[in-house]
Amino acid sequence: MEEFKTVRELYEAVNFGDVMQIDLIDEVELEGWIKTNRDNGSIGFIELNDGTYFKNVQLVYTSELDNHDEVSHYLTGTAIDVKGKFVLTPNGKQPFEIQVKSIELEGAVDPSYPLQKKRHSFEYLREIGHLRPRTNTFNAVFRLRSVLSMAIHEFFQDQGFVYVHTPLLTGITCEGDDMFHVATDFKNPNSYFGKPTLLSGSGQIHVEAFAMAFRDVYTFGPTFRSEKSSTRTHASEFWMIEPEIAFADLDDDMALIEDCVVYCINYCLENAPEEMKFFNERIDTTLMDRLNHVINTPFKKMEYTEAIEILKEAVKNGHKFDESRIEWGMDLQSEHERYLTEVVAKGPLFIINYPKEIKSFYMRENDDGKTVAACDLLVPGVGELVGGSQREERYDILKRKMEESNLSMEKYQWYLDLRRYGGCKHAGFGIGFERFMMYLSGINNIRDVEPFPRTYGNMDY
Amino acid sequence: MEEFKTVRELYEAVNFGDVMQIDLIDEVELEGWIKTNRDNGSIGFIELNDGTYFKNVQLVYTSELDNHDEVSHYLTGTAIDVKGKFVLTPNGKQPFEIQVKSIELEGAVDPSYPLQKKRHSFEYLREIGHLRPRTNTFNAVFRLRSVLSMAIHEFFQDQGFVYVHTPLLTGITCEGDDMFHVATDFKNPNSYFGKPTLLSGSGQIHVEAFAMAFRDVYTFGPTFRSEKSSTRTHASEFWMIEPEIAFADLDDDMALIEDCVVYCINYCLENAPEEMKFFNERIDTTLMDRLNHVINTPFKKMEYTEAIEILKEAVKNGHKFDESRIEWGMDLQSEHERYLTEVVAKGPLFIINYPKEIKSFYMRENDDGKTVAACDLLVPGVGELVGGSQREERYDILKRKMEESNLSMEKYQWYLDLRRYGGCKHAGFGIGFERFMMYLSGINNIRDVEPFPRTYGNMDY
Repeated sequence: MEEFKTVRELYEAVNFGDVMQIDLIDEVELEGWIKTNRDNGSIGFIELNDGTYFKNVQLVYTSELDNHDEVSHYLTGTAIDVKGKFVLTPNGKQPFEIQVKSIELEGAVDPSYPLQKKRHSFEYLREIGHLRPRTNTFNAVFRLRSVLSMAIHEFFQDQGFVYVHTPLLTGITCEGDDMFHVATDFKNPNSYFGKPTLLSGSGQIHVEAFAMAFRDVYTFGPTFRSEKSSTRTHASEFWMIEPEIAFADLDDDMALIEDCVVYCINYCLENAPEEMKFFNERIDTTLMDRLNHVINTPFKKMEYTEAIEILKEAVKNGHKFDESRIEWGMDLQSEHERYLTEVVAKGPLFIINYPKEIKSFYMRENDDGKTVAACDLLVPGVGELVGGSQREERYDILKRKMEESNLSMEKYQWYLDLRRYGGCKHAGFGIGFERFMMYLSGINNIRDVEPFPRTYGNMDY
Repeated sequence: MEEFKTVRELYEAVNFGDVMQIDLIDEVELEGWIKTNRDNGSIGFIELNDGTYFKNVQLVYTSELDNHDEVSHYLTGTAIDVKGKFVLTPNGKQPFEIQVKSIELEGAVDPSYPLQKKRHSFEYLREIGHLRPRTNTFNAVFRLRSVLSMAIHEFFQDQGFVYVHTPLLTGITCEGDDMFHVATDFKNPNSYFGKPTLLSGSGQIHVEAFAMAFRDVYTFGPTFRSEKSSTRTHASEFWMIEPEIAFADLDDDMALIEDCVVYCINYCLENAPEEMKFFNERIDTTLMDRLNHVINTPFKKMEYTEAIEILKEAVKNGHKFDESRIEWGMDLQSEHERYLTEVVAKGPLFIINYPKEIKSFYMRENDDGKTVAACDLLVPGVGELVGGSQREERYDILKRKMEESNLSMEKYQWYLDLRRYGGCKHAGFGIGFERFMMYLSGINNIRDVEPFPRTYGNMDY
């Protein structure tokens, strides 16, 4: 006989609706934490959560329990072991309940326990980061984080991509100056490795070497940025997904991005249905509509040059942007991106072929000499979700661009060499994992989608 | 009609042996890199690898090619696009070949290309870390790394474990003093976060908070250690897997470790068969026997105290250890561990209940007051593969042990608080991912299982 030991197993049997299966459930043993406990003297109700499922299970106990007095005083948060009888309750609020035969105390709760049955603000919960995963909202967030991680691995592995752990300790960076430095001795910071050491801001440079061996590869790991910004989207430590594909151009890249985004949304809807429903009900009531729209709408493409014309036209017609000086060569701001995806495209939109001056040195120069084969994916409600490009595979052009960017040729010679040792056209993209999490949950602060967020001035726990 | 665009797809169709399927393959287009190219004037053979599969595909071309002269001079490493006809060759060395219709150059190779058709030493290949994934050995290693990563995720996710990204920037550590320090300004190292910042050596402390919300959780991410050691097993940056399970004791922990190790070995044998065969033939001819033995032998258990008696007896009977002073309380050396697992248990062996003095403060004190509920899994050929323990869930005892370890109570109060807010018995373990990789491949230097290894004094690329 199959054993049912978790709340998830019980819900799944019941949701699956297999009567034969359910008939087998009789006595159950559960362990978990009390969410609420109320008792009227003769009958008591405990909402128990064991962490395996978003929903609680209702325990019903009576004064016949040996330790009834004790049990009736168990506080929210108490860890208990339960034995009881599983009973379907087709007319109840819950589909089933457990008629308790015994309850044993596993771990008591001090009355100072800060999580009580009331709404706590996100700001307050950040101050108890070690406890907030126990709340409904953060339980949903961090399970989604796990489910989305798996979605990413399955998406790439199913297609034969090789997962590469690019190094975090590095001497090079392609992501600007806001980098953390690492040392064992601050007075002599180069003493351990013999050279200046940074925390990586991207695995792309390194993973390109692996694309030249395995064709299709991806990274998924932590990255770091030491910007002194305290906005809702900045974190000092965050996770990135960076696929790199060989024998591929910008169109191949965009096809992969579209597949990936749609796959991940579907995967989360399928594998975290209770959590997604919760987000839609409590966090962002437009969430499901937004996500369903994205998975059902082919992604559009628009040249950067056309985007600029459209924005100019919008300004002329009276649309107000904070930055209304629209000119070719500018970097698009979030307000511009959202206008393009929400008002113009009314759905997911790739902007392609950006001016080379505002993009990175490694992006492939187009024949016009002015633009590079880059794409940003914009989505309604958020703006930029993914950034990608075809990479510059021509040795001489890449070298010139690196010189123009004042990069150390010595440090990057191996990267350049990938272009003269059987190089090929290749492309890749980056997804900020937390950005994706915010998009999928409706949570609007990066601090609330990271287990223990690190931001400028804040590193608690 | 299905498209066959990669070498893997062709091999899988042929290996699967579906004649109808194979009949559908006619014209194919491939892209890849030349491994070898030989031409006798009228007929030429190219071994092509496209990174998707461990084996090469044979291209056969004749002097009828428009660019025959050019093609016949393509060097090892050249990237090409190929069109041709798929032909089964049941009597050939390969099961099939491609009769070339056209070859186009995608990327040439400079004659200085350091990878030629000959054996290169591991030491030499470390000096060309950006190219070594293209060699057979490192291609096999880094695909196995990807496959093993996925094995770990599937093992835990299939059982409902929640994947937690514990932070790498941290103010606390439970793994000793050899930690890297992080700052934006070495003259004022606390300026960014307002406190001293380390790179994490373990996610365990943080993930315990999540086990108290989700019951079953795991981490899988980078960790750091700044030991000034240059041995074949030390790296400054490496990956760790750290599961943590609530409502679980040491026996549950060991059952999970055994399941995990066996699952991962089976998964790699199934999903990287060519690579595993290669390791067995070229790297360690005892590999398959060793792994098959492990997956077919129930893991044994032995008390530390008994292990000491057995080692004493062995010394008495003339067995030579480098460290032959065996006494209760000592930390077992690798030679002792290997004797126990290879000679005594002749298979995987858990040593349990170690003296508390040689184990970490967070391990649960046994009733004897002398030992803790810890387990190390020893396996033949390697010694320690996994270390785990039941955690101390009793507030007062944990607090006392932390005081004895001179830990800052202020920094760890939140960790202690997990014990007074509905704590429960729980356990967990850690697997060094690179150690596991070495075990599964027979590769005996950690530098050769990491994409871009970082070790004391070495941070190239």
